[in-house]
Amino acid sequence: MPKSLASIVLSPADHASLQSQLAARLRALIQHGHLGAGEPVPPSRQLAADLRVSRNTVTLAYERLIDEGYLESRPRSGLFVRESIGAIPLAKPGPDSQARQSQLERVAPARAFRESRPDVRLFPLALWNRVRGRALKAHRRALLQYQSELPLGLPVLRRAIATYVRDRRGVSCDWQQIAITSGSQHALYMLSHLLLRPGAVAMMEDPGYRGARRALLSARATIHPIAVDAQGLRPPTTVGKKAALIYTTPSRQYPTGACLPVARRTELIRWAARTATWIIEDDYDSEFRYGYPPLPSLHSLDPGGRVIYVGTMSKTLFPSLRLGYVVLPWSLLGRFAELRSALDDHGSLMDQATTAEFLETGAYYSHVRRCRREYGSRLDTFLSAVRETGLPLEFPHADGGINISGFLPDSSDDAAWVAAMADVDVDTRAHSALATRPVRPALIFGFTAFDHGEIRAAVRRMGRVRQGRIGRP
Amino acid sequence: MPKSLASIVLSPADHASLQSQLAARLRALIQHGHLGAGEPVPPSRQLAADLRVSRNTVTLAYERLIDEGYLESRPRSGLFVRESIGAIPLAKPGPDSQARQSQLERVAPARAFRESRPDVRLFPLALWNRVRGRALKAHRRALLQYQSELPLGLPVLRRAIATYVRDRRGVSCDWQQIAITSGSQHALYMLSHLLLRPGAVAMMEDPGYRGARRALLSARATIHPIAVDAQGLRPPTTVGKKAALIYTTPSRQYPTGACLPVARRTELIRWAARTATWIIEDDYDSEFRYGYPPLPSLHSLDPGGRVIYVGTMSKTLFPSLRLGYVVLPWSLLGRFAELRSALDDHGSLMDQATTAEFLETGAYYSHVRRCRREYGSRLDTFLSAVRETGLPLEFPHADGGINISGFLPDSSDDAAWVAAMADVDVDTRAHSALATRPVRPALIFGFTAFDHGEIRAAVRRMGRVRQGRIGRP
Repeated sequence: MPKSLASIVLSPADHASLQSQLAARLRALIQHGHLGAGEPVPPSRQLAADLRVSRNTVTLAYERLIDEGYLESRPRSGLFVRESIGAIPLAKPGPDSQARQSQLERVAPARAFRESRPDVRLFPLALWNRVRGRALKAHRRALLQYQSELPLGLPVLRRAIATYVRDRRGVSCDWQQIAITSGSQHALYMLSHLLLRPGAVAMMEDPGYRGARRALLSARATIHPIAVDAQGLRPPTTVGKKAALIYTTPSRQYPTGACLPVARRTELIRWAARTATWIIEDDYDSEFRYGYPPLPSLHSLDPGGRVIYVGTMSKTLFPSLRLGYVVLPWSLLGRFAELRSALDDHGSLMDQATTAEFLETGAYYSHVRRCRREYGSRLDTFLSAVRETGLPLEFPHADGGINISGFLPDSSDDAAWVAAMADVDVDTRAHSALATRPVRPALIFGFTAFDHGEIRAAVRRMGRVRQGRIGRP
Repeated sequence: MPKSLASIVLSPADHASLQSQLAARLRALIQHGHLGAGEPVPPSRQLAADLRVSRNTVTLAYERLIDEGYLESRPRSGLFVRESIGAIPLAKPGPDSQARQSQLERVAPARAFRESRPDVRLFPLALWNRVRGRALKAHRRALLQYQSELPLGLPVLRRAIATYVRDRRGVSCDWQQIAITSGSQHALYMLSHLLLRPGAVAMMEDPGYRGARRALLSARATIHPIAVDAQGLRPPTTVGKKAALIYTTPSRQYPTGACLPVARRTELIRWAARTATWIIEDDYDSEFRYGYPPLPSLHSLDPGGRVIYVGTMSKTLFPSLRLGYVVLPWSLLGRFAELRSALDDHGSLMDQATTAEFLETGAYYSHVRRCRREYGSRLDTFLSAVRETGLPLEFPHADGGINISGFLPDSSDDAAWVAAMADVDVDTRAHSALATRPVRPALIFGFTAFDHGEIRAAVRRMGRVRQGRIGRP
């Protein structure tokens, strides 16, 4: 005698069809053992009557569970929970559940010119998956286990990154000074919490990177803004002003795009040495230079070991990988590892092993080279299209990066421009929104995530902006 | 005329062969453009002379780079950097680099009876990879992009987990109250930082979970130990003692294994309501009960919304997935999301999409069922093998979990027992090491990560422990 299932509740208001809801409820009853292996289920006519749904709804739900391997039909006896339910194979989601999923859950792509995004469509995902498979094979199942003894990351990746930053950025370090993090935000957060006591002074560029500001504020720092001009940050000169750290983006100042000249780099490093200030060098997109190669890192100019270098794979591989790294001074390694253990134990080793293999085999370099070429040509498309619109935008730093800043005439209100751009469905951001004090008005455009056609279409929309209507500050 | 490559430095002391070192250096020169597409490389005889290595070393390195697609040979002209180097296909690592990797970098498996580990060999990795492929297809490339607007996780997974905790643990919540974290340590860290000001009192079980202690201390809390007996935590009674939160493991107290009886649960919840104390319920392994089903969660008994429920996929799927979750009260959601943005932006959406699909299709439940059966039988093997050794160990809480605590006679020194066990190559941990005050001496054994043969072999070694030599405290 089958159990009564009349207590099942279906909701017509739910976004799922009654049939899907019923299938889900039955699946749950079986999964949780309320309906055991070999147990009969009520005939469809009876269940339909109990639940006040059409018989067809029940039949379709039953059929789906037969397909998925939860139920089996026995000739002349009816439907039963499968005997071998313990070793049940993977149920394929029916077409309606997939459609529902795409409708409701799919993560949305961004509008042009949302900043700081690589084009993930260029990423060689099939190759990445093959490399991942190989890494899994090489490391066997150990990659799946806890690796709390590796809070700084997989040695093979730390070595590969040490080589990479030495060759590419002139960073000279031992591989043991490399710590892998879950993206550069994670690195900035941990450094803030290690280097700052509540109320300590942290200097940062103004305008500057909001993620850094968030990290510093979460450590309850007092932020001192440092002015930025056409050459990047103006190094502090006073010795009296005591800061625990200074945050900077010397390769391409965020958001202006200025590259810090060597003279200022030396000045900054000397000041940091004199005042015993840590320098956090965030080198977020130096892989992408379209003209000449980037200047060597600040780290490479610092004999005193006061520069902490932060890098990321978000722009060169893909952002949701959540993989960044820090080159740490020896004195901070132990505390960094300790904080990581308290914070989240360790990162995903599978992704670390895959990234290591990607670097070691050169696939990483091929991909970056390909993107660099493509992004460079997208920048050209963007700049020449904007020129045709006659908009009063100037682009003084147009030689690299994944974002480009367009400067407006001095008296403009860049926030009003952002609103006017939004009216024509263009996503941009004002420098004034990234600063605590008045700055030269400008807009940031992220041009790398959009193809030539998308770029041209969005710039055409920009051309429709009615400039006369944009207020002054 | 080929460039001279005489400046390449090879180190005989390096762990890699000269041939591998040379291949790596040449690869880097090509990757970084020092050797451009179509450029010739020196003849092997000349490079061998320049570098003072055998010609064979150079030939083998060159051959490897030809195989990898970096170099090409032109009849009667010599070797050149491949013209199409920009679109270079993935280089396969040579056999020696793989061997070296396995030797040096492979993450090591743990010895029996290292605690708190699932058996990752049971994990259906091929199935997981298929599901991952399907998730990637359903969400398209958007899964690879930044998703800073989803600091609490992918909606599809938050929904699936809301259903899961409702059905399995009686946790009644809206899916929007679920926050996905990078493992439960991450959740404990964030909760500690949200709920505690420096110096605030946090209560926790004594002996108790070290990860929780680390998280609480990182928020500069003052920890008040709460005594644990055979029934688990003894609920605080005084109203005067003001704590910001209490951390507890009611389903299976860690490390004793005691299950908190319903009377104490009610008492604890009443006390928390009276004193406005948050309760953090860490439900780390309730999926594994080998006798009767687990008691419903503490969360399900709490009408006042003071219980914050923390769960993890580390034991049911695999630890290096780094996926946990929290059921948050509505009042904390905004601040939790804000902290996540400052801390590490968001988690890996690819893994979240895969886990969602794994739950939705029932594959998760099949895997847990299979593990539960296997772990239950491993526990039987462990207990009967230990009984035969005649060791003075008692196992009062032998009905579930992934660890089991063996209690020693009252006057024993459990730390000395751990040392004696290490002498026979058995990994265990003393309760006294997890407590701040004297506790009943006991050892924790993790039995789930080891198969029947490994369990028997390790217990045989335990039988060789010379009890007479173990000191008293």
